[in-house]
Amino acid sequence: MLDLGLPALLSVVAPDPSGVSVERFLLLLATILVSAKVLGELAERFGQPAVIGELVAGVLLGPSVIGFVDPTLPALHLFAEIGVILLLFTIGLETDLKRLLSVGGAAFTVAVVGVVLPFASGYFVAHALGLDLLPAIVSGAALTATSVGITARVFSDLGKLKSVEGQIVLGAAVIDDVIGLIILAVVSDLVAGTTPSVGGVLRTTAIAFGFLAAAIVLGRFLVPPVFNFLARTGKENTLASMALVLAFLLAVLASEIGSAVIVGAFAAGLVLAPTEQAHAIERGVIRLANLFVPIFFVAVGAAVDVRTFGSRDIVLVGLALTAVAILGKFAAGFAPIWIRANKTVIGVGMIPRGEVGLIFAQMGLTAGVLTAGTYSALMLMVLVTTFMAPPLLRQLLSKSSTAELDQESLAVAEMTTEA
Amino acid sequence: MLDLGLPALLSVVAPDPSGVSVERFLLLLATILVSAKVLGELAERFGQPAVIGELVAGVLLGPSVIGFVDPTLPALHLFAEIGVILLLFTIGLETDLKRLLSVGGAAFTVAVVGVVLPFASGYFVAHALGLDLLPAIVSGAALTATSVGITARVFSDLGKLKSVEGQIVLGAAVIDDVIGLIILAVVSDLVAGTTPSVGGVLRTTAIAFGFLAAAIVLGRFLVPPVFNFLARTGKENTLASMALVLAFLLAVLASEIGSAVIVGAFAAGLVLAPTEQAHAIERGVIRLANLFVPIFFVAVGAAVDVRTFGSRDIVLVGLALTAVAILGKFAAGFAPIWIRANKTVIGVGMIPRGEVGLIFAQMGLTAGVLTAGTYSALMLMVLVTTFMAPPLLRQLLSKSSTAELDQESLAVAEMTTEA
Repeated sequence: MLDLGLPALLSVVAPDPSGVSVERFLLLLATILVSAKVLGELAERFGQPAVIGELVAGVLLGPSVIGFVDPTLPALHLFAEIGVILLLFTIGLETDLKRLLSVGGAAFTVAVVGVVLPFASGYFVAHALGLDLLPAIVSGAALTATSVGITARVFSDLGKLKSVEGQIVLGAAVIDDVIGLIILAVVSDLVAGTTPSVGGVLRTTAIAFGFLAAAIVLGRFLVPPVFNFLARTGKENTLASMALVLAFLLAVLASEIGSAVIVGAFAAGLVLAPTEQAHAIERGVIRLANLFVPIFFVAVGAAVDVRTFGSRDIVLVGLALTAVAILGKFAAGFAPIWIRANKTVIGVGMIPRGEVGLIFAQMGLTAGVLTAGTYSALMLMVLVTTFMAPPLLRQLLSKSSTAELDQESLAVAEMTTEA
Repeated sequence: MLDLGLPALLSVVAPDPSGVSVERFLLLLATILVSAKVLGELAERFGQPAVIGELVAGVLLGPSVIGFVDPTLPALHLFAEIGVILLLFTIGLETDLKRLLSVGGAAFTVAVVGVVLPFASGYFVAHALGLDLLPAIVSGAALTATSVGITARVFSDLGKLKSVEGQIVLGAAVIDDVIGLIILAVVSDLVAGTTPSVGGVLRTTAIAFGFLAAAIVLGRFLVPPVFNFLARTGKENTLASMALVLAFLLAVLASEIGSAVIVGAFAAGLVLAPTEQAHAIERGVIRLANLFVPIFFVAVGAAVDVRTFGSRDIVLVGLALTAVAILGKFAAGFAPIWIRANKTVIGVGMIPRGEVGLIFAQMGLTAGVLTAGTYSALMLMVLVTTFMAPPLLRQLLSKSSTAELDQESLAVAEMTTEA
């Protein structure tokens, strides 16, 4: 008999140890794109940012409901990572560095306070509820980092990324990602049973922030001549491809040096933003982002396992952690007392934890430091903070507060165009 | 000590059985994009189509020279497959079905003759040179299918895809891909030791061609209303995303039914070509194609192992097979005697075997039917046919012959616009 199962044809060329055929992966992509689009549109009909719909699509498609999307699939993980890299790259492309730096002090203050408060209060709450030292530290650490991806997408969906509040939240979220990775390194040491040295921590900190500064300063010198040359010799698609190469390379460099890939991608965007080719690059990259970015948010949603919220004790621990996670970041929004801006918007903007909180929880679980119960409690914290911030922000930004905010934005915008 | 190897962070989220980290894969993509662009530009400076440069980049980066790109890496294979799917999808989007059908008889004749002649002569040459029955059959089969990807890219690079010759070659290459897959199924049975039944072969043939016809006929009814609806309600990027979903779904369907993913993707393009949204879709998809398509050609190049051409005997067998591979397809170009077109261009256009020939050779090697020597001989055939056609075509198309050709194109164009 003739075997009709010809998809085997492809596996002849590339035996696939990751267990997913090209056909299966195309189906996965098609499903993710359609559901992200449908639920994203639906969210907008209900006045919510599209990203909420994409996250819900992920939860529904994920292992705990329909079970079609497995977020640990290597190829999907790769597409999701490229998605968040493209997102931060386009955000960087749209960011005016002068403007970002003009609120740099405020952003830094929000970031530091927004790491210290949730970490300390998360640790005490967890410890008070009966967790040992190490699990309590990991739980506290999981509350530290705001999700840059979700925060940037929400402000961007609402057209408020360039407001003072949007810039402070963006800057603070990038900074607390860098801090979060330093904490992760320290916690990894503790989990592994070694004692982190103060010198080591300081070195990591210096390297992580030094990278961002060096990439931006050097990039501003070296990158424009290269892209001017490309613009004279090549086609428009060459510009977009080579901009992508720069984003990928800085992402890898950032990661190798102990920072996060998204920090590198954001730096690449910042470096290209003032070039003459920025608009042409953005036109090219936006199309790619349209394909890849929803995959990231669906993957984040799919990593949430709603089946674990069965136990009352777990839910109570989870809600306690959620409360301090919200209050800590909200308070951080009011930390830069000298800045004239809507502090409530800043505080709420810092709340979503998204994928970064999941990474901490997953690490604790894999290392055997967290019980399945504590892991579920942290997941509840991620779920609530991620889903509550977008609708709250939308409400805040559509109310009277936006008048003040827009005036403020305008003033800053005038300041920077004059400079 | 503090561990700076933070890339481990990502592997916490997704343990990676395929053995490639996100960072490593981003580096791979960056390298592929830069070298494809540089060598593509260089090829154009020397008056060659850009695709030649991309293939050379693949050979150089592949295991036999620099060894940086491993074409069997699952994630890379996936990107390459999406690349060729996007290529055939955009080719389909640019194809006028009426025009393609107006040369349908000629294309079908070229395809059938271009499969029979190389298969028969390849078998006899291989058998005469001492190969057993089964290895000789596999060798003959490896000569049958023209690479649609390379052929379409070359005609497109030269701006001649819409000429009569371009349309005949495109149609014939798609048809002989379908035939090639049927032969592959038969050969797989032989290799596995089972005798293929005539009924089974006929059924596979009917299904494979029936799919193409059904997809196009049904698609022309069902697809325009959907995209009209999307155009009224959504943004332009929704159109491109949903067009991509259609391409992915038809690709999977084609593969499941015993045809090739690229046939499905081409059908999706054909179906969308006459819609009002075709241009908006193409604008969106072209950007994606710019990223993915070079990855496909670099992967094809990287699959060629130039180290295997050490033995004189292997090279002689290889050259004998190459000779009949070239002559068989070239003769096929002259088979549709009734058509007024540049037969030399058609014949040369059908010569490149590319990835399809490699698939046959790889299957024979994996199944133990081909020796490493015969495999290398087939690889030489693929290498020579792939690299000789583009420069030859460029020469043919830039000479006096193009006058006749353009006139012909014009006549057909007028015919179809009047219809």
